[in-house]
Amino acid sequence: MSESHETIMPEGRTRKGGRAALRRQRARRDNTMLPALKRQLPLVEPMSREQIEKIDAASLDILEEVGVVFRDDQAIADWKSVGAEVRDGDRVHLDRALVRELIESIPSSFTYHARNPDNNLPFGHEHSMFVPMTGAPYLRDLDDRRRSPTLDDLANFHKLAHMLPSMHSSAHHIVEPMDHVVAHRHLRITYSSMKYSDKTFMGMTSSGKNAEDVLDMCAILFGEEYLETHPVVTGNCNGNSPLVWDETMLSAMRAFNRRNQPVLCSPFVLGGANTPASTAAAVAQLNAEALSALAYTQVVRKGCPAIYGHYLSTVSMASGAPMAGTPEISLMNFMIGQMARHYNVPWRTSNTTLGGAKTLDAQAGYESATTMMAVLMAGANYIWHSAGWNEAGMHCSMAKFVVDAEQCAMGYRMAQGIQWDDFDEALAAVRDIGPGGHYLGHAHTLAKFQEAFFMPRLFDNNSFEQWVADGSRDITERALSEARALLHAYEEPKLDEAVDEALRDYIDRREREIPAVDALNTEH
Amino acid sequence: MSESHETIMPEGRTRKGGRAALRRQRARRDNTMLPALKRQLPLVEPMSREQIEKIDAASLDILEEVGVVFRDDQAIADWKSVGAEVRDGDRVHLDRALVRELIESIPSSFTYHARNPDNNLPFGHEHSMFVPMTGAPYLRDLDDRRRSPTLDDLANFHKLAHMLPSMHSSAHHIVEPMDHVVAHRHLRITYSSMKYSDKTFMGMTSSGKNAEDVLDMCAILFGEEYLETHPVVTGNCNGNSPLVWDETMLSAMRAFNRRNQPVLCSPFVLGGANTPASTAAAVAQLNAEALSALAYTQVVRKGCPAIYGHYLSTVSMASGAPMAGTPEISLMNFMIGQMARHYNVPWRTSNTTLGGAKTLDAQAGYESATTMMAVLMAGANYIWHSAGWNEAGMHCSMAKFVVDAEQCAMGYRMAQGIQWDDFDEALAAVRDIGPGGHYLGHAHTLAKFQEAFFMPRLFDNNSFEQWVADGSRDITERALSEARALLHAYEEPKLDEAVDEALRDYIDRREREIPAVDALNTEH
Repeated sequence: MSESHETIMPEGRTRKGGRAALRRQRARRDNTMLPALKRQLPLVEPMSREQIEKIDAASLDILEEVGVVFRDDQAIADWKSVGAEVRDGDRVHLDRALVRELIESIPSSFTYHARNPDNNLPFGHEHSMFVPMTGAPYLRDLDDRRRSPTLDDLANFHKLAHMLPSMHSSAHHIVEPMDHVVAHRHLRITYSSMKYSDKTFMGMTSSGKNAEDVLDMCAILFGEEYLETHPVVTGNCNGNSPLVWDETMLSAMRAFNRRNQPVLCSPFVLGGANTPASTAAAVAQLNAEALSALAYTQVVRKGCPAIYGHYLSTVSMASGAPMAGTPEISLMNFMIGQMARHYNVPWRTSNTTLGGAKTLDAQAGYESATTMMAVLMAGANYIWHSAGWNEAGMHCSMAKFVVDAEQCAMGYRMAQGIQWDDFDEALAAVRDIGPGGHYLGHAHTLAKFQEAFFMPRLFDNNSFEQWVADGSRDITERALSEARALLHAYEEPKLDEAVDEALRDYIDRREREIPAVDALNTEH
Repeated sequence: MSESHETIMPEGRTRKGGRAALRRQRARRDNTMLPALKRQLPLVEPMSREQIEKIDAASLDILEEVGVVFRDDQAIADWKSVGAEVRDGDRVHLDRALVRELIESIPSSFTYHARNPDNNLPFGHEHSMFVPMTGAPYLRDLDDRRRSPTLDDLANFHKLAHMLPSMHSSAHHIVEPMDHVVAHRHLRITYSSMKYSDKTFMGMTSSGKNAEDVLDMCAILFGEEYLETHPVVTGNCNGNSPLVWDETMLSAMRAFNRRNQPVLCSPFVLGGANTPASTAAAVAQLNAEALSALAYTQVVRKGCPAIYGHYLSTVSMASGAPMAGTPEISLMNFMIGQMARHYNVPWRTSNTTLGGAKTLDAQAGYESATTMMAVLMAGANYIWHSAGWNEAGMHCSMAKFVVDAEQCAMGYRMAQGIQWDDFDEALAAVRDIGPGGHYLGHAHTLAKFQEAFFMPRLFDNNSFEQWVADGSRDITERALSEARALLHAYEEPKLDEAVDEALRDYIDRREREIPAVDALNTEH
């Protein structure tokens, strides 16, 4: 593995010691995952206690008086069994006392387990993790060509997620493997996530039955009993805002909950189209929706971990297109962070991404960086869509994947806050150097510079003349070189052979059983 | 003026009413300046009271024990006159009591006056203003061609600054007009700032004599007596970190102070090269440097407004190049904001910009947006270099100028915080629509969407297919169209004819008096 594969990574201060990880990376040129971020910066909390209570009250009014539609017989039966009032067949009116009682049993934090225990992650409170984007029907490949993805492309993204220290998960269908029939894809996607990375991963929720397959495969990988007490997979369930949860999502949610696995309860906000044209009221509606799903997880299984989720965009009233990096998305993130902490439930947001640029151009950069700063300041625990997203999620870019990962590493460093441990030593250097000198050769500088100031690899800060002499390579080219180098250096974290065989047997059997025709579901 | 020139702008809540400004823009399609931003979001303040005091104590120790070199006979005489200890001819050791006593008389806020009083700005406390970049020896022009700038190019940038509602100043030498002799440039630059915009502007500090010319021209524009009680121009003075102030800067500073005009006292930090490799110690050194200059302004003229400034970058130890958008720059901004508020002095930072990208590519976007989010969260009052900066300040880009201005407008909206005034009305819409509906046709949406959710004009959020059908135009092309349209629609805010003539007479006389040979000074 050549020098060029080394990524200079920020230090951590958690369990395993991020500074030790940094030293390991320098010494062994490896790609050890950064520990889950333990945030040290104060958060941006724009709402007063009264305003939080105002949102809470408005949401509970909506749940009581407007109600939420659960388009699913089982859910309606479940709700009736706990005494909720159901009108018009599927419209559930939730009493505020019932909602409060139900969400009370959601754990405020837990450990998210990976098959490599070194990659386990604390989930909740001051911890944050970065998870790649998922769900792209196209990719921009190693030649920046936009095309349909294959299982091999998906494997490459899983390998990149494995190699990039700031990525805490291999997620699931980063890209949709279009070379495999829809009905069987969830099996191959899950296998790919499990095989090419030993970090945490996500489980498909494209139907209740698909989710059950994912959980059966998790049971093979971890053991059925292990699942009972160890969260090992997250599933995402999107609401149909305003105020509807459908059977596909609810049956997948139940599959996860029954095996004690956490679901991201994610209303899907297109601000102005499926919410009122008001930031505060959009959050009140979203909060009602999230609470209704969070409460339902506890009807299915009391004490099961569950995540306050959301997907946020605002809609251009000029074109109808969803927009990203807009000020209201930042504000909604700050507000939702406050609401999730008010309920003492871990929360998920979406990151650097969510932009609508068609290439890795300046628009992509502005949108991505604005969103990342906002979600870090909002204190999100599960920062999904953290690498690769472009074109409103229609493609995942190999180039952007590695650029975003470096941005996450920079955000990680920032969120760790100020280092004070060598303050006196550094001040002694000021006395040594005195007015008019420079610090480049000073012993303190030589000892500390790699830890003191992050050096992005994918940004070119050379002179124009040097840049031209180097071939005027733009950031896409530089990033694609990095992606190729990472894939070249990739070493598979082998699955236990018996487990691998059992997983493949399971897939073979299920592919025989499941008719090769189905509909494609996407989630965000 | 065609529809395409309209920029949808965020609302304000200050003196003149940003909401009213928004309505004016829609109604008259004009380009009325946004009022100074009045920030409503809580700031990111990572230091505890003890840590602020730790930095303060370390800085005062540096001033007492290490001292600061003032390479200027007049300054040394001035310091001796107030009882400061001078060693080795020019090394001033400042007692902490003297520093504290001197900075005490700096106004915590004041009004920054423009020739059009509608464009006056509150300076300090919770107010922020956006000021374009300055000092670029190259531009990327309306064809994105990188070349030497002329006086005409400078005029175009002043016109853009005048037209863009989020820009609060026309600054001064946005680009260096290379078609005019160095020794006379400050005269033409000042005239261009005054003539093509009626917003606030900056004054050249390239020498004491040049600064005096600027102030003489201000006296022509505003009246000599008016200056005595009205800040109308800011001058920037960079320190030679570590711990040196030179004659050029100090004589310019005195010229401003004597006419009661504010100077940005700006240490020039290349973290790791001219500071220790430590964020906290770099801030302690910078703080000492800023305090020494702030204190000196009060020796020159007690009660004169003065600004806590800095220029921040970190240095790549791999290449020696300055870096932008790095986590430590964000942290330093947060910390400096806390220090400036600790001393109750307005402060200046640098914005969206400060990046090293060679084109308006994704690197430029990431760097710019990261920095803008940080400086907004840091609560800076004077946000310089807010539009156009690229290539480490070596060029100002016409395209990036308008993109950055839109980003400032978005940051402005975010920093205004959450709107609650139509909360109940918007919640009523939730009841009207109910589960499963959409809000697009609802009366509340139609009434509020333009104010509720910012719609960036320069981001393309259409589908890939639509974007291709529209010619696959990248953000640079889209931005250059916008710049051309703005320049086409530009209307000069005419100077009073007698004043204009007096200014031109002054320039003619000074250009006869000043030999046409000089050295170029830059500032940041």
